[in-house]
Amino acid sequence: MSAGRGRFVVLEGGDGVGKTTQLPRLVAALERQGHVVRAIREPGGTAAGDAIRALLLDPATALVPAAELLLFLAARAQVVADVVRPALARGEWVVADRFFVSTYAYQAGGHGLDLAQVRVATTLATGGLVPDLTLVLRLDAAAAAARRTARGDADRMERHGAPFAARVAAAYEAALDPAWQARHPECGRLVGIDADAPAEVVTTRLLDAIAGAVGERPAPSATLT
Amino acid sequence: MSAGRGRFVVLEGGDGVGKTTQLPRLVAALERQGHVVRAIREPGGTAAGDAIRALLLDPATALVPAAELLLFLAARAQVVADVVRPALARGEWVVADRFFVSTYAYQAGGHGLDLAQVRVATTLATGGLVPDLTLVLRLDAAAAAARRTARGDADRMERHGAPFAARVAAAYEAALDPAWQARHPECGRLVGIDADAPAEVVTTRLLDAIAGAVGERPAPSATLT
Repeated sequence: MSAGRGRFVVLEGGDGVGKTTQLPRLVAALERQGHVVRAIREPGGTAAGDAIRALLLDPATALVPAAELLLFLAARAQVVADVVRPALARGEWVVADRFFVSTYAYQAGGHGLDLAQVRVATTLATGGLVPDLTLVLRLDAAAAAARRTARGDADRMERHGAPFAARVAAAYEAALDPAWQARHPECGRLVGIDADAPAEVVTTRLLDAIAGAVGERPAPSATLT
Repeated sequence: MSAGRGRFVVLEGGDGVGKTTQLPRLVAALERQGHVVRAIREPGGTAAGDAIRALLLDPATALVPAAELLLFLAARAQVVADVVRPALARGEWVVADRFFVSTYAYQAGGHGLDLAQVRVATTLATGGLVPDLTLVLRLDAAAAAARRTARGDADRMERHGAPFAARVAAAYEAALDPAWQARHPECGRLVGIDADAPAEVVTTRLLDAIAGAVGERPAPSATLT
């Protein structure tokens, strides 16, 4: 990593593990450490991405899995070029809600698209950008399902049923294996975080993992406070 | 090709070579031969594709080349699954305005995206569907530019200027080389058609090329007339 470059941290995990709760908590904590932080949530974050999100969530479009994947990747290409790379170049931190591992878990693991093809298409979208750290929130299937039910969500990602959810969960677990990570250098380093705890405890675990993996470093703005 | 399967014919060439004029003429002529014909024009042809087309043509989205490519491929995945494969399975003909070669010419040739990555992403989108024949309309650069000017078009595809247009034209010419075709079996057979002639002459050339390459075959509906 070159001097002056910010950090790119990804929050990952299946539906219901707590990403939506943790993302703003993590951003606020990193800002308190003196970092300038940009949060992105795929597939939004750009004008094109917001339009793509609407398309993905519209039941009327009835997308086939390959089209769904390619729409996610189009949004990713745009947000990487417009938001992530410029922020990192300014020395800012970027925290993303989902990135590579979601693509592999849902589109390859869940829908059965060819992983080798998915990897190439993903690399095309990102231009080779590798996250500094990906934090995978882990929660057992029953607890995650209960959270989804409590939330009342039923978007496209959650309409595929239990066998699909099991394949997605298995793909996330597989990605935490160091041997898998060695075979997927494009994903960077992945760390599993036990999400079966109160929100503030999970946030602390995330921050500890970031400190341990990415290293403490005064942010450029810290000298101004 | 299995018995009962229709034919998939693609009309290709840069902006201004006459695809928009020739497509309906070709469809009408094939219908007069007794075929049931479906015409598709990328990136439209499905609800998702029409939404993607609007996004691609909207100057406000300012897409990076990789996002533009992936949006085209998302639309292609959807139209192949929803329209092309079902029509071919019913024994119908499909005539497409643009397909593989446009992607290679514009996104790899014009924009400089990595061709190997583009090929993999394209194959992912089509699930390995290979056109029976791709007809590449050829017109010299000055004549094509004059037609574009006369038409008054200036959409995203035409706003990139002369060097871009030259790279696209060179990519189309390269694809007509038999050696190139041997290296790109996913594109199927390509035939160049001289488009510097009155519309009815060009249509006859297209039909002759189809008869020569795809072969005469009574369509299922022909026995009913």
